[in-house]
Amino acid sequence: MKHVLDLAWKQNMAFETDLDGHKLVLDAAEESGGDDSGPRPKKLMLASLAGCTGMDVVMILKKMKVEVAGFNVIVEGDVADDHPKKYTKMKVIYQFKGDNLPLDKLEKAVKLSEEKYCGVSAVYKEALELTTEIRIVE
Amino acid sequence: MKHVLDLAWKQNMAFETDLDGHKLVLDAAEESGGDDSGPRPKKLMLASLAGCTGMDVVMILKKMKVEVAGFNVIVEGDVADDHPKKYTKMKVIYQFKGDNLPLDKLEKAVKLSEEKYCGVSAVYKEALELTTEIRIVE
Repeated sequence: MKHVLDLAWKQNMAFETDLDGHKLVLDAAEESGGDDSGPRPKKLMLASLAGCTGMDVVMILKKMKVEVAGFNVIVEGDVADDHPKKYTKMKVIYQFKGDNLPLDKLEKAVKLSEEKYCGVSAVYKEALELTTEIRIVE
Repeated sequence: MKHVLDLAWKQNMAFETDLDGHKLVLDAAEESGGDDSGPRPKKLMLASLAGCTGMDVVMILKKMKVEVAGFNVIVEGDVADDHPKKYTKMKVIYQFKGDNLPLDKLEKAVKLSEEKYCGVSAVYKEALELTTEIRIVE
């Protein structure tokens, strides 16, 4: 299967595309000569990873009949100081909220996403150090 | 420098985050159990690459005083058939529109982005085959 994305330059540093029928605008910050009409492109790498593994985990927990009161996927990315300013390390924090959550099942869901299902982490971990943490909050 | 992204689960397969002050919703397609309230996360990998290199090229061409009438960055990604369904190959097509465009300068701008500036391609090319094409259209 092939995915095709067409990103069109609008003006100054702003670009626009259609992703699955949803408009996405990307722009540089004002201090970088842009107009901040949309987010910076590199950070989409973090959103892509968080969304991919987050959806896997939601789906797996549903199958396991584990119900959570809240769930956040926090991704921390270390950026290189010199060009190319790439992510050199990422940490994915799976933060669950709920009473008496079964840690073993949460761990299994996260592991299944990371090792079997998530196509985004499968690419990133070839290129950078990817670590994981599970947090349960009140 | 560290970038932190916090993606919050909303309901069903939908997640939401704030990226540089801009709201981004991610969701699965209806046939995958979602409500299509936002794009699929994996495709953000393509948008991230297109935006990163596109902004580099716009900025470099501006410095070179090259004016284009139009500019699109098209990214084609080949997706693996089996889990994890990751991108195995990407092709970046830089499509410029304009009269008498100086191909040597366009090539130089693209090369500078790919080899020096773009932090997204710097990561992807460690993990998959990344190729480039420059097109000039009427």
